[in-house]
Amino acid sequence: MNSIVIFGAGNVATHLLKALSKTQDFEVVQVYNHHSSSLEPFKNFVATTTSLSEVVPADIYIVALKDEAIPPLAQKIIDRTALIVHTSGATPMQVFEDFKNYGVLYPLQTFSKKKEMEYANIPMCLEANTRANLLKLEKLASAISQNTYHITSPQRKSLHVAAVFVSNFVNHLYTMGEELCRKNEIPFEILHPLILETAVKITTMSPFDAQTGPAKRKDQEVIQSHLQQLNPEQEKIYILLTQSIQSLHGKEL
Amino acid sequence: MNSIVIFGAGNVATHLLKALSKTQDFEVVQVYNHHSSSLEPFKNFVATTTSLSEVVPADIYIVALKDEAIPPLAQKIIDRTALIVHTSGATPMQVFEDFKNYGVLYPLQTFSKKKEMEYANIPMCLEANTRANLLKLEKLASAISQNTYHITSPQRKSLHVAAVFVSNFVNHLYTMGEELCRKNEIPFEILHPLILETAVKITTMSPFDAQTGPAKRKDQEVIQSHLQQLNPEQEKIYILLTQSIQSLHGKEL
Repeated sequence: MNSIVIFGAGNVATHLLKALSKTQDFEVVQVYNHHSSSLEPFKNFVATTTSLSEVVPADIYIVALKDEAIPPLAQKIIDRTALIVHTSGATPMQVFEDFKNYGVLYPLQTFSKKKEMEYANIPMCLEANTRANLLKLEKLASAISQNTYHITSPQRKSLHVAAVFVSNFVNHLYTMGEELCRKNEIPFEILHPLILETAVKITTMSPFDAQTGPAKRKDQEVIQSHLQQLNPEQEKIYILLTQSIQSLHGKEL
Repeated sequence: MNSIVIFGAGNVATHLLKALSKTQDFEVVQVYNHHSSSLEPFKNFVATTTSLSEVVPADIYIVALKDEAIPPLAQKIIDRTALIVHTSGATPMQVFEDFKNYGVLYPLQTFSKKKEMEYANIPMCLEANTRANLLKLEKLASAISQNTYHITSPQRKSLHVAAVFVSNFVNHLYTMGEELCRKNEIPFEILHPLILETAVKITTMSPFDAQTGPAKRKDQEVIQSHLQQLNPEQEKIYILLTQSIQSLHGKEL
């Protein structure tokens, strides 16, 4: 049995704790967080602490905090023998270079506390300072997910930007679509099948080949009639993305 | 049995023909298209013609052509008694006002010829010039889909713009994500679960509530490190969407 301490009480920490509790070989023995209130939902399941001096020794420390909180925490941790990993897409592994054993366990997914996650499908991006630590991390990651990848810090940095494009920015476009529906008394659910099909499609064909719509067809009449319906902010985004589609797909003609 | 003529041989026509062939009460008796070559894949299933003077009388004419081709075709159709509908999100119903019976049957979905569609889930947006014609269209739409909506021409126009945001523009962001992966030798499939989860999420919670990421968190350090990795075009899109997320979610603080 490998013992684990989780640092953090946010979405990633919550889902990790749940996923790890279903494994045979790994046990979360403690959750640390600076603020006591965020620990409330954890208290029925696991020991908690708000004091770094009370953190117990364990085989693995998982730091599931926001990026700016990782370096100051790393400096304050007393036990330097545990394998320490963070779960961030944006922080380099070297933030832990004063430790003997360190790495990264980056679950590439969007987490909401409210929504149940099927952890088994989440890609786990792994990196470690030694081959032995990478194997240890792989054992941990395979216990909670079927998809594990070795991803270097520079690759992870790029992956994190790519994830912002395909998830955060995409979700913002969904929000803009919902706003357009609401303003015109159209139920947003009409768009659900289109949204799902657009996403599912790129799992079997390249998004480049899947592109459709007035921008790709260079249908200026439709584009002009769309622009007339938009507020200045929607218009700016519409124009920029239309130009980008046209310059990408124009090249291929 | 209601007889149908389809005008057009593109993606929408192809999928409509397939869906209608499975119904009891509707039969496609002919497919018209200006170009003979596009009719080739249809010839084994249904009578075809490239000449408007050869178009047979039928109960319903479905015009599944691109927007600019609809008005000239409407002028040339001889039989003015059939219920004539188009399938476009962008063309007003009034394009058919010289007919006695007319309307719109707009399937809100992204179509690729190559990909099989589950027609039953596609929302059908219906509009007609009389109550009787609307009922007729509803019978037709219900035969191929479980989701039918009454949508006016102005609503359909807004819905079409919204669809561009949540599908065409979203797909372009997927393409940009793929490009970032390819450049850094990361398999794009790592992003598939994130893409699917981001889409599925908004069917159970509002996209406004589902928003996550550095833009929403106003995490300037991560945003700056992302910008350094982008080419000028990616950078423009990143900045504009980040500002848009921040101005929307900032308001709520």
